[in-house]
Amino acid sequence: MTLITKEYCQELDNNDVIAHTQQEFTLPKDTIYMCGNSLGPMPKNAMAKAQEVVEQEWGKSLITSWNVHGWFNLCQSLGDRLAPTIGADAGEVVVTDATGLNVTKVVAAGLRLNPTRKKVVMEGSNFPTDNYVVQGLLELMNDDYELVFAEEDELYDVIDESVAVVCLTQVHYKSGRLLDMKAITERTHAVGAISIWDLCHSGGALPVDLNGCNVDLAIGCTYKYYNGGPGSPAFVFMAKRHQGKVQQPLTGWWGHAAPFAFERDYRPSENIDQMLTGTQGIISLAVTGVGIDITASTDMNEIRKKSQAMGDLFIQLVDQECSEFGFEVISPRDAARRGSQVALTHFEGYAIMQAMIAHGVMGDFRAPDTLRFGLTPLFLTYLDVWNAVAQLKDIMVKQTYKEAEYNKKHAVT
Amino acid sequence: MTLITKEYCQELDNNDVIAHTQQEFTLPKDTIYMCGNSLGPMPKNAMAKAQEVVEQEWGKSLITSWNVHGWFNLCQSLGDRLAPTIGADAGEVVVTDATGLNVTKVVAAGLRLNPTRKKVVMEGSNFPTDNYVVQGLLELMNDDYELVFAEEDELYDVIDESVAVVCLTQVHYKSGRLLDMKAITERTHAVGAISIWDLCHSGGALPVDLNGCNVDLAIGCTYKYYNGGPGSPAFVFMAKRHQGKVQQPLTGWWGHAAPFAFERDYRPSENIDQMLTGTQGIISLAVTGVGIDITASTDMNEIRKKSQAMGDLFIQLVDQECSEFGFEVISPRDAARRGSQVALTHFEGYAIMQAMIAHGVMGDFRAPDTLRFGLTPLFLTYLDVWNAVAQLKDIMVKQTYKEAEYNKKHAVT
Repeated sequence: MTLITKEYCQELDNNDVIAHTQQEFTLPKDTIYMCGNSLGPMPKNAMAKAQEVVEQEWGKSLITSWNVHGWFNLCQSLGDRLAPTIGADAGEVVVTDATGLNVTKVVAAGLRLNPTRKKVVMEGSNFPTDNYVVQGLLELMNDDYELVFAEEDELYDVIDESVAVVCLTQVHYKSGRLLDMKAITERTHAVGAISIWDLCHSGGALPVDLNGCNVDLAIGCTYKYYNGGPGSPAFVFMAKRHQGKVQQPLTGWWGHAAPFAFERDYRPSENIDQMLTGTQGIISLAVTGVGIDITASTDMNEIRKKSQAMGDLFIQLVDQECSEFGFEVISPRDAARRGSQVALTHFEGYAIMQAMIAHGVMGDFRAPDTLRFGLTPLFLTYLDVWNAVAQLKDIMVKQTYKEAEYNKKHAVT
Repeated sequence: MTLITKEYCQELDNNDVIAHTQQEFTLPKDTIYMCGNSLGPMPKNAMAKAQEVVEQEWGKSLITSWNVHGWFNLCQSLGDRLAPTIGADAGEVVVTDATGLNVTKVVAAGLRLNPTRKKVVMEGSNFPTDNYVVQGLLELMNDDYELVFAEEDELYDVIDESVAVVCLTQVHYKSGRLLDMKAITERTHAVGAISIWDLCHSGGALPVDLNGCNVDLAIGCTYKYYNGGPGSPAFVFMAKRHQGKVQQPLTGWWGHAAPFAFERDYRPSENIDQMLTGTQGIISLAVTGVGIDITASTDMNEIRKKSQAMGDLFIQLVDQECSEFGFEVISPRDAARRGSQVALTHFEGYAIMQAMIAHGVMGDFRAPDTLRFGLTPLFLTYLDVWNAVAQLKDIMVKQTYKEAEYNKKHAVT
């Protein structure tokens, strides 16, 4: 293979058709931010939006803002803006609550759509909160439900006629491995099960096609690739064909057919509103819209193309520049099977990542040995990728990571 | 009774020992804001806090903020700051999620603390979201659970040895009626049931004494009397004696004993952290702290004294100035039995409230005929109360409310 040069990377940037989106973000000087797969950076307009919702709306319009500034419909309007990025239609998505709570809603709804079966299939190595949530839900339902954990290569064997719900995360949080949504959903439906997808690591990173794949229910997060802000509210998708047929169990007043009638008994809304629980944190919610709009106004196919090209470039550069240092690429080398991050392993991974961060390249570390690098097209350049790997090489050549400060035991990463 | 004069009200303001808290808030000019019982107004420092968390923390420190700016412990630190205002100890409260979701947690936990019984008692005329939530929960648990609705005068009859959990709202959202927490909790415990209180309309409005009353579990909201911002996260209380003994069912990674170990299976934290689900909307959460701190640094007994005095004054002025206009006071006239709001009924209530709002007095309306006025000591003056009732009288005398614009049918109030 031809040697990759810095000039070649610069050339890639010159030809980047979505380079203009970089201007939408503010990043600290001298920082290459490769944690966009975990917490997206601040869009430039985020502060103006926060100011608008705090000072203008809350401060001046006070309680009338629920109507005059559309707070009461913000979950739905944000959902409609996000919908096209995941292949959903208007009226199929709401932005609301934390991710895990939305997992409760969709898995419970999925089980109710398939009431004669008792088995839920998930991936054991999944980001664990989904698994915890379903464990908690099934324990509460107290009715011989069974949670079966399977890894990728076991999925087809496990998904059979006994399964009620298959709930999988499209892109693996650690390795970045991308599952085949279309094939797995087809298999799921072929055995009469309900298909649920967690899009936390794929929504906003690649063109998801929920309706094209005939997915039943989905959830995802907005603080990663949608750059919605720290812990910004998650989203829930329910296909139109299921709406009004089944009820999710977290039944608050925002999911009622007539919230302001203050009826004593719950009467479910028959549209996507039933996925709502109660009053939402409006400041966080409003700011989320800024990030969602940047993604929604960018061609998802171009985002995907650049993401794959950056991932390939990163891996090629690690091969080219750092081959002697003992890194292993645990993400798929085939870009078609990879999300928008690349994970390396190294037995000194923790100290290496600490040294990288100290030198301005922010990736993150997952115990025991995984270094994760987010390759996020909206604000990173190909030159950033070059410089990140150059920094990695420098740290390994000089053994900077062996300095005491980088080896301190970490509390939380 | 002696006639109340405007000068007398001014005199009350001159002697107000917590008058200084008014400077902590920004309110629009020429507005008397009597909806603090529904959405508290913006504290002056709210915008600075929003700017800090958005621009400084998210914008500059990015993902490292989870540790360096204490985001990961914000639910607990806010809970500790709020705890003294409700008679709880540090380590017994977290600020997190929406109110209704916290109802799910505490009622499910309460049922698990009392596993041989199946009955939950609630007030049918409660703000309905709590009732909806429990209906949804019991339906999910699918095991002969029964929800019994009772009104205040029926409670003692209904709370018997068959009851598992009694879940009541301390101050009624509509009438402002205050229940006797101590007596009802004693009765609840005497029959072997678990006592849960919803403090949405009492937390921050009066000195709640959860531990003094030996309450088991509680929840409440921060966007009313704590002035935490629109839809700001709610709080959950679990008495120390129950922590680690029982698990709430919304089991996300933040409630895990070792969140960053990424274990496959849920292992509950044995302290208040188990009440957490997953990643929280940090901007809303951080801003909430500004309001909580104002309340927490003010003597709750003085807040209560002023609240009662303002409520009495409001009722006396309505009697004195508006007796011929057909209003009925549906809140208890005895201040000891009333929260921090006064509700009137009038068959033209909707139009009257619209006219009041148009003339700068913001209260709210609840169908079919209730006008609610929040008497919130932190930012209202006695003179505000005088002026509000003077405005009401003016509207009634001039029949301003009969103008067409005030009679338009409302969508959402």
